[in-house]
Amino acid sequence: MAFLNENYLKLKAGYLFPEIARRVANFTYENKEAAARLIRCGIGDVTEALPAAARDAMKAAVDELGDRGTFRGYGPEQGYGFLREAIVANAYEPLGCKITADEIFISDGSKCDTGSILDIFGHRNRIAITDPVYPVYVDTNVMCGNTGDVQEDGSHGGLVYLPCRPSNNFVPRLPAEKVDLIYLCYPNNPTGATASFSELVTWVDFARANQAIILFDAAYEAYITEPGVPHSIYEIEGAKDCAIEFRSFSKHGGFTGVRCAYTVVPKDLLASTEDGKRHPLHPLWARRQSTKFNGVSYPVQRGAEALFSEQGKKEVQELITHYLGNATILREACIKAGLDVYGGINAPYIWVACPEGVKSWELFDRMLNEANVVITPGAGFGTAGEGYFRISAFNSRANAEEVARRIAAMKW
Amino acid sequence: MAFLNENYLKLKAGYLFPEIARRVANFTYENKEAAARLIRCGIGDVTEALPAAARDAMKAAVDELGDRGTFRGYGPEQGYGFLREAIVANAYEPLGCKITADEIFISDGSKCDTGSILDIFGHRNRIAITDPVYPVYVDTNVMCGNTGDVQEDGSHGGLVYLPCRPSNNFVPRLPAEKVDLIYLCYPNNPTGATASFSELVTWVDFARANQAIILFDAAYEAYITEPGVPHSIYEIEGAKDCAIEFRSFSKHGGFTGVRCAYTVVPKDLLASTEDGKRHPLHPLWARRQSTKFNGVSYPVQRGAEALFSEQGKKEVQELITHYLGNATILREACIKAGLDVYGGINAPYIWVACPEGVKSWELFDRMLNEANVVITPGAGFGTAGEGYFRISAFNSRANAEEVARRIAAMKW
Repeated sequence: MAFLNENYLKLKAGYLFPEIARRVANFTYENKEAAARLIRCGIGDVTEALPAAARDAMKAAVDELGDRGTFRGYGPEQGYGFLREAIVANAYEPLGCKITADEIFISDGSKCDTGSILDIFGHRNRIAITDPVYPVYVDTNVMCGNTGDVQEDGSHGGLVYLPCRPSNNFVPRLPAEKVDLIYLCYPNNPTGATASFSELVTWVDFARANQAIILFDAAYEAYITEPGVPHSIYEIEGAKDCAIEFRSFSKHGGFTGVRCAYTVVPKDLLASTEDGKRHPLHPLWARRQSTKFNGVSYPVQRGAEALFSEQGKKEVQELITHYLGNATILREACIKAGLDVYGGINAPYIWVACPEGVKSWELFDRMLNEANVVITPGAGFGTAGEGYFRISAFNSRANAEEVARRIAAMKW
Repeated sequence: MAFLNENYLKLKAGYLFPEIARRVANFTYENKEAAARLIRCGIGDVTEALPAAARDAMKAAVDELGDRGTFRGYGPEQGYGFLREAIVANAYEPLGCKITADEIFISDGSKCDTGSILDIFGHRNRIAITDPVYPVYVDTNVMCGNTGDVQEDGSHGGLVYLPCRPSNNFVPRLPAEKVDLIYLCYPNNPTGATASFSELVTWVDFARANQAIILFDAAYEAYITEPGVPHSIYEIEGAKDCAIEFRSFSKHGGFTGVRCAYTVVPKDLLASTEDGKRHPLHPLWARRQSTKFNGVSYPVQRGAEALFSEQGKKEVQELITHYLGNATILREACIKAGLDVYGGINAPYIWVACPEGVKSWELFDRMLNEANVVITPGAGFGTAGEGYFRISAFNSRANAEEVARRIAAMKW
């Protein structure tokens, strides 16, 4: 008799975005006219054309595959050297981070990597996650049995929640209890907040002192516009001893549909067996990837490499300037409407407090029905997200401006 | 203190193919001249140009991404409808299998899927694997803690090995003990054997009677040339109640570097909780994929779809005819050399018995040094693979002919 993984039955009914999709589908089914006016600022998905540098490189790579002399079959599971080296030279050397090409693992997405990284960890770890948080961190821990029962407020037993609120600038205080794995994401999804050098130093020092590991999601680092904000956890001294970093081309080069990301596992990073022996994690992740993954599509890797060419960099910057321009428009519209607004300066997300007493799914329904705008309810990101909503700046300029007008027209 | 997954420390030192790569690298370093003559028949990786139908479709899809009007960001995690429907119409309907598009999950590879499928199963399952076997099945079970200690002969405690030998035509007999998950792969990697209808009926009946689940790897089904050989487990009545099927475009359309595959999880397929309640597995896999995966690159899915166009089918057939032509040449060369030869008729692999008393890694080294040909030692696929070696037919025609000549020239 085949047994299923019962942890899956502990998962909450809907992953956030499918639930949004369901409500939007119902709305558009019942309101054909309003549906035509619908503007989606819910899921954080890019909308603008893929950079020509990436397209040209992808097509050239496809042509290479058309000639048996230049054909390539299975690539290295960890990614081609050309891309790993381009990442070192363009993403880490300029920051002064000493990351080597073989510490970089190319993958098909940060969602995959932030989920699959749990494969190499044991089940005795105490997991700390910020609240609100990207739901994948929680759900993947539920799936592999790292959590207990669901509580009445929707939180999961066994996790240590680190609340992020205006009072701490959305950067959590150190926990009172011992934790072993700590998820941090800066610039943050969903709050749009950044962590300062001194805040990250506090966390790195804490992790090193406790032999804990920080899982640092830097998927939005390209949106940092202000000086003095760290782009990588490895800018902090000692982070190579205690942190894995996840980065992606999704929001950087508009690759959400093309699929390419990378994860840095430093060779200095150790974890323990139950009897207290310390082992490097790099060979474990290398083994995981070479056994359960077969590398990223060759044309996709060439496309990602081209984002670091002179033309590619210019096009990436144009994309980011565009989305951040939207963010400014949306931020200001919310401020003018008298709402408390966070983020949107170093991130493509604006995090807005609902008017006093309004719950976030209630606000979701109001925005959908009254403004025909899809946002993401804060409660979908965790208990501490209740009373907030997230607006995504990934849109056309015309749509961002129209959303700003509709926000202005709403009765708050 | 962060704990690692100690199951990884139970893995044998080298995954088979990295070990081959290491020996070949040593050889080429020490024998520059002979290295130039080296012909690789080791890893089962395609060598010929990617079909033009796929290339054209991929490039057109890349162009679509260059226009914001036709741009696509995140696709459905389970794959685009156009590809799922093309698979139903071209891979299943002609066989009379009633598989629906939403039972098909598009992925970036069968290696990923055969590994990740264990995510949705519990840890109390008794796992049966054929021997010899594709190493990923074993290693992924080791990684997630489904096995015990490594035995002296290299086998893993806790697994039920099903020996495949000439005496059973490389199709295992039913096990005497109870098993819950059963890995079957036909046409088989590494033996090149097929399973007949009646053999698969025996297994499906056994699985249904025991509420066990068959994990059926059909990655090589496109190589079946003989009539009367089942292409899919779903050709067997009742298989939708007891089997998951894995298929891939890797060896079908030459996609090893492009990355696209699919897994069928029928809606009728149930598994049990520990208290004996039966649940469908389809929602678990759907949840797994939507949480830990983000869909296959859009241009890649368009490329895969194009393999089912009229031109695509023709080109795929030409590829397969080419590789099977090589298989015939290699098969006949081994037969002429007086060796016992299996496979190579409905599969791109030839499975050859080593001369009396010669071990398979010893034969690997002899072939490398004397013929400058890389093969795969049977022992790398399991205990029952000792005394055999695998020759891959993925090569140019000239190389296959040259390998045949070198086999003829060797002293057996």
